[in-house]
Amino acid sequence: MRFLRPAILSMTGYVPGEQPKRADAIKLNANENPYPPPAAAVEAMRAALAGLRLYPESTSRGLREAAAAPFGLALDRVMAANGSDEMLRILFQACLEPGAEVVAFSPSYTYYRTLAAIQGAAYREIEFTGDYELPRTLDAGRARLVLLPNPNAPSGTLFPEREIRRLCAAFPDALVVIDEAYADFAGVSAIPLIGEIPHLFVVRTLSKSHALAGLRVGLGFGRPELLAELEKVRDYYNLDRVAQAGGEAALRDRDWLREVCSKVAVTRARLTEALTALGAFVWPSAANFVLARFSPADRAKALLLGLKERNILVRWFDAPRLRDCLRITVGTDAENDALLAAMRDLLRGP
Amino acid sequence: MRFLRPAILSMTGYVPGEQPKRADAIKLNANENPYPPPAAAVEAMRAALAGLRLYPESTSRGLREAAAAPFGLALDRVMAANGSDEMLRILFQACLEPGAEVVAFSPSYTYYRTLAAIQGAAYREIEFTGDYELPRTLDAGRARLVLLPNPNAPSGTLFPEREIRRLCAAFPDALVVIDEAYADFAGVSAIPLIGEIPHLFVVRTLSKSHALAGLRVGLGFGRPELLAELEKVRDYYNLDRVAQAGGEAALRDRDWLREVCSKVAVTRARLTEALTALGAFVWPSAANFVLARFSPADRAKALLLGLKERNILVRWFDAPRLRDCLRITVGTDAENDALLAAMRDLLRGP
Repeated sequence: MRFLRPAILSMTGYVPGEQPKRADAIKLNANENPYPPPAAAVEAMRAALAGLRLYPESTSRGLREAAAAPFGLALDRVMAANGSDEMLRILFQACLEPGAEVVAFSPSYTYYRTLAAIQGAAYREIEFTGDYELPRTLDAGRARLVLLPNPNAPSGTLFPEREIRRLCAAFPDALVVIDEAYADFAGVSAIPLIGEIPHLFVVRTLSKSHALAGLRVGLGFGRPELLAELEKVRDYYNLDRVAQAGGEAALRDRDWLREVCSKVAVTRARLTEALTALGAFVWPSAANFVLARFSPADRAKALLLGLKERNILVRWFDAPRLRDCLRITVGTDAENDALLAAMRDLLRGP
Repeated sequence: MRFLRPAILSMTGYVPGEQPKRADAIKLNANENPYPPPAAAVEAMRAALAGLRLYPESTSRGLREAAAAPFGLALDRVMAANGSDEMLRILFQACLEPGAEVVAFSPSYTYYRTLAAIQGAAYREIEFTGDYELPRTLDAGRARLVLLPNPNAPSGTLFPEREIRRLCAAFPDALVVIDEAYADFAGVSAIPLIGEIPHLFVVRTLSKSHALAGLRVGLGFGRPELLAELEKVRDYYNLDRVAQAGGEAALRDRDWLREVCSKVAVTRARLTEALTALGAFVWPSAANFVLARFSPADRAKALLLGLKERNILVRWFDAPRLRDCLRITVGTDAENDALLAAMRDLLRGP
């Protein structure tokens, strides 16, 4: 296999959260939305099934219009991708030659490291403070690309706008990407800053807030001249007809989004309170999950395994600063009650 | 935009066939299947709409099983992609560093050139003979990747197995990719050769023979140790739940496939005969389209425009050896009758 790039041969593939073997599991490990997607989206997808023998419209125009509308943006500031994974991959491919530097933060989303390895890029990690804040000084180095999830995963914490501005100012020669996978739950966005900051780009997804993880719809927001270049890298027919139709209809149902985000916020507050009452420290979350730290340090892993035995899946990371923590998706009230009952039981001991 | 790679800034994006403005157009320009996809596939997709809040199974296991079965292959010899576009992109990303050489043929599928440009790779084209055969001698150069569609597009011509073997022998240090987008119509495949030739890889799609261009399902067939490396480059959740379900059901309906391919073959023979009677030269096609050469040399373009006025779309390429040709998709009998009537009318003149 001498024809393969050495960078590929030497890299490790991405390892995501485990998928349940049993269909009846309480699945709080992948930050999926516990509520079904809007009925209008399902109806639009059903209608789209009639037209599949023909290629899709390659620019996903209707979907992009629906994504642009809430922000009052022109259509040429939005692009659509096969999940935010593809949007991120396009950014890495467009910006990073072998050896070029990409900056991400830690503890944060680890898929960026995989994407960097594919490009043969130099991956530099800046550590958050203990409160998951950006450090006081930010070293621009020779970064071409900088990635910050906001809210951050797995902490759920939110960076205020002034911190986004400080990040952009600290990396004037890089493309600064704010990964807003969970931003609908926080009700904030850096998208309005794009008009002001040309090297800012925002990535979004319908997987979390729109309950369409199974459909793969991602979005990118940036300056038109930048999007024109990124479009060259995009797979030409990247979004199928069903995804375009379902994504568009989901984005247009703003009432549904408001209602679901507010239900998640209420359950998140209850979950946070209950976990705190159980002795955990929970970072203030603006997302649809919480990060809870347990003591002693080995309790998180023990809870993970105990919950799994009871068919409840949460996420544990074998990584610095995270081994004493669990990341728990905000489910329905019933799912969270079951989780908390099981945890109380496990913490009581044999 | 100093953060962008110069290779991206200097390249041109891919320009595909025009999409019709009017919905009632006779669309013979994108090699779509004129028949609707199998009913079982539509039914499977409808059922999949109920589960979209959860992530898809990331390896598309059921789809790959259905793809492997007709060839009697083990599951670890098949991978699934978001259309053959993504499969090809993965191959380019895995094999080509900036400056590495990729070899394709001409006149052939031009998307390979775009994928090479994205990688900053050196693109070398070998010209087919006038009969669309491989030249007698093949210069391996320093190629890392070689791409040959079989049947070839836009000629529709088929390379026999001994020519595939000769190609693999001529490029012992490269990955030889046979792009079988149209192979179901020819009823042949290089997939059985993979056991024998480790540096052979076969790409397929459900867009043409399975009438699912709007769904985006591509497949790759190769040695397990190669697939393990390519998997590292694949977007982790690249195929949505609807595409996995529809693709699997479509692949399992072998009777539907046989019937549609045989209908296309019959209409193709009629179309070829009629175009020949109109004075065109038609290369022998094993695909769901034909390449017809007209004389004088400017007649093809005039026909393209005249047909477009009558709301019939065919494909013309502004490229060497193709400017006097039209590539015409094999439609239904009714569509082809309408095409031929319009052509007769246009050739009769005012």
